[in-house]
Amino acid sequence: MEDSLSRQNTGLMPYLVATSQILGVAVLAITGTWLSQYRGGFSWDGPEQFNVHPLCMVLGMVFLCGDALLVYRVFRHETKRATKILHGALHILALIISLVGIIAVFQFHKKKNIPDMYSMHSWLGIVTFSFYILQWIIGFIMFFVPGVAFAYKSRIKPLHVFFGIGLLVTTIATCLLGLTEKVLFSIPDQYSHLPSEGILINSLGLLLVAFGMVIGYIVTREEWRRPPLPEEQALSIDFKTLTEGGESPTEP
Amino acid sequence: MEDSLSRQNTGLMPYLVATSQILGVAVLAITGTWLSQYRGGFSWDGPEQFNVHPLCMVLGMVFLCGDALLVYRVFRHETKRATKILHGALHILALIISLVGIIAVFQFHKKKNIPDMYSMHSWLGIVTFSFYILQWIIGFIMFFVPGVAFAYKSRIKPLHVFFGIGLLVTTIATCLLGLTEKVLFSIPDQYSHLPSEGILINSLGLLLVAFGMVIGYIVTREEWRRPPLPEEQALSIDFKTLTEGGESPTEP
Repeated sequence: MEDSLSRQNTGLMPYLVATSQILGVAVLAITGTWLSQYRGGFSWDGPEQFNVHPLCMVLGMVFLCGDALLVYRVFRHETKRATKILHGALHILALIISLVGIIAVFQFHKKKNIPDMYSMHSWLGIVTFSFYILQWIIGFIMFFVPGVAFAYKSRIKPLHVFFGIGLLVTTIATCLLGLTEKVLFSIPDQYSHLPSEGILINSLGLLLVAFGMVIGYIVTREEWRRPPLPEEQALSIDFKTLTEGGESPTEP
Repeated sequence: MEDSLSRQNTGLMPYLVATSQILGVAVLAITGTWLSQYRGGFSWDGPEQFNVHPLCMVLGMVFLCGDALLVYRVFRHETKRATKILHGALHILALIISLVGIIAVFQFHKKKNIPDMYSMHSWLGIVTFSFYILQWIIGFIMFFVPGVAFAYKSRIKPLHVFFGIGLLVTTIATCLLGLTEKVLFSIPDQYSHLPSEGILINSLGLLLVAFGMVIGYIVTREEWRRPPLPEEQALSIDFKTLTEGGESPTEP
């Protein structure tokens, strides 16, 4: 009975995971199409350097970070070690790509003599990215460096999960602000007549929100949590007994 | 041991609830100050009708909706019925105030011949408000109309909770978009020199995000869930046995 119930409960998850990937790819495709069709495409040295920024941020901070959150649900039957490595690898990629995106916009501003860091987009973006770096450092120390006590890990984990989702949300909000800024700078007079570029950008905004919502739903369902493998379960109970019982073998 | 642990676990909650209320009041005060000091104050018939829109949306859709989510945590020792009524009452207020805010902006656009519904702010706003109405209707039928089976309620409840938090998030994102639009329409040339109005609006954006984050954290901590009162627990176990066991007294 319980087995069939748990199978029934995870029944929707694969469809939602598929939906999230379709939304993610759609978001990337629309971002690329918008920048190449309406904003002159990409270059590193020319005036199109700006366009590297939105593409890298959507790819790194939205798509790859979003997928990194899904790793523990999707690869639920792999070892914890393997899923951790994949989670970390996706975040290394995300970090590198979004750093390229951030450098692109600062270099572009410098060349064009445009002031930095005055808009709400830039404020929220820099706060989000700083917390992302902090989350990266704490996450790395806690979950990759060996020897951290189980008691610390289990205290930090819910915070790590909450801020992971929270940072995806503020990243998407930052993207929407960036898109709104860009459309008001680029086509201020035409936007209110809803030209095709305006429709594309607005749709991109809604799809980004939908991507975040689906990822948020998948990773907050308690019943879809990665079940610990039998050997992990035994190990974690051992540790729990040691740490919660107040008796530690290292402190006799 | 378990009792002291649960007391310890809820220890931070009152401070976070207080923080959320300070943030909420700060957000309202800054919105009011910005609109009256920099945007000419409020009126219903004059050109200041627009200003009713941001104030009502921040008060109704952000502050009151955010507080409505907290009701079950803050009044954890009141009866379920009393907390439900308070949750519903806050949402009635939120609905009325945000309807006034929405009417204000549509009337203002009509008088000034400004096109409606072309920006990402308006798209995300109308989608969010439509889902809010839907959430309202489903929530009312499920949790206020008597006679709905326990099995349905317990299926809908996690969805109701997820969409409640999700709608607060998209509401805040919509506010940030609205603030960015407004500042780029009102002071397009000065914004990049960060005048006091720009700093105020950017800070308002970050405080709105902080408000959402703190509320989100409080309502997603499993250990801070409202514990069922002893009489509710007995009742819910009875219902659970009846519904999950597949035997119903009404269907012999």
